[in-house]
Amino acid sequence: MLTRIDHIGIACFDLDKTVEFYRSTYGFEVFHSEVNEEQGVREAMLKINETSDGGASYLQLLEPTREDSTVAKWLAKNGEGVHHIAFGTADVDAEAAGIKEKGVRVLYEEPRRGSMGSRITFLHPKDCHGVLTELVTSAPVESSEH
Amino acid sequence: MLTRIDHIGIACFDLDKTVEFYRSTYGFEVFHSEVNEEQGVREAMLKINETSDGGASYLQLLEPTREDSTVAKWLAKNGEGVHHIAFGTADVDAEAAGIKEKGVRVLYEEPRRGSMGSRITFLHPKDCHGVLTELVTSAPVESSEH
Repeated sequence: MLTRIDHIGIACFDLDKTVEFYRSTYGFEVFHSEVNEEQGVREAMLKINETSDGGASYLQLLEPTREDSTVAKWLAKNGEGVHHIAFGTADVDAEAAGIKEKGVRVLYEEPRRGSMGSRITFLHPKDCHGVLTELVTSAPVESSEH
Repeated sequence: MLTRIDHIGIACFDLDKTVEFYRSTYGFEVFHSEVNEEQGVREAMLKINETSDGGASYLQLLEPTREDSTVAKWLAKNGEGVHHIAFGTADVDAEAAGIKEKGVRVLYEEPRRGSMGSRITFLHPKDCHGVLTELVTSAPVESSEH
């Protein structure tokens, strides 16, 4: 079961400038930041609200760290904007397996490491009406990641 | 103050097929549907979770009702995908005024009618790092809209 909008992933050319835009315009603060070498991104998570399943919804601002990363290629084609959306679930493995059985392409064989120690996978946008869709299971004790 | 991710607006060519995709793939059900003649869209709201400010987060699926609507033009250029994101606030008028003062273009002189009797405005995507951004104040008694 998918129980929340976990985050909206937004690709940008300059993470610091984009973080500053969201801070000065809306008052959103950085909750967490990290570099994900596997994904080739530097990212900032801005927590917007908590959710009824005990989790939270974030904006995830993404700047590519290398030209061959997926996000770098996406930015070169599309410019800045919404790159993906992510739904939270207690069990990303079971959700991915169930969705795969329905004929939707799951992009990873096994979930990989996402923001704040989460486990994530992606669904092919062409099978999701044009929306690159991520499934996320948060790390067990999210508060230790602050 | 913006207190939640209110919704993610997703443009599609065929609302019924897209609703069915979200139902059969994820189990998301239609919470509300309507036609907004002013915006030139037929839409379905899928409620994903409730939020810590007393509101909720939705997916808003949008099909254009006429070729000259903003969403129709966007679809012709981009194909299906995420069209905009929306933040919820208790006071869209005050938020829009404050954001305008910071030099971000607000697209409406006065907020207009959005989904479920809400009041909405939009911010220019070129001033928001490529993201068409909506501000929403829900109707006072949202439960009466079910």
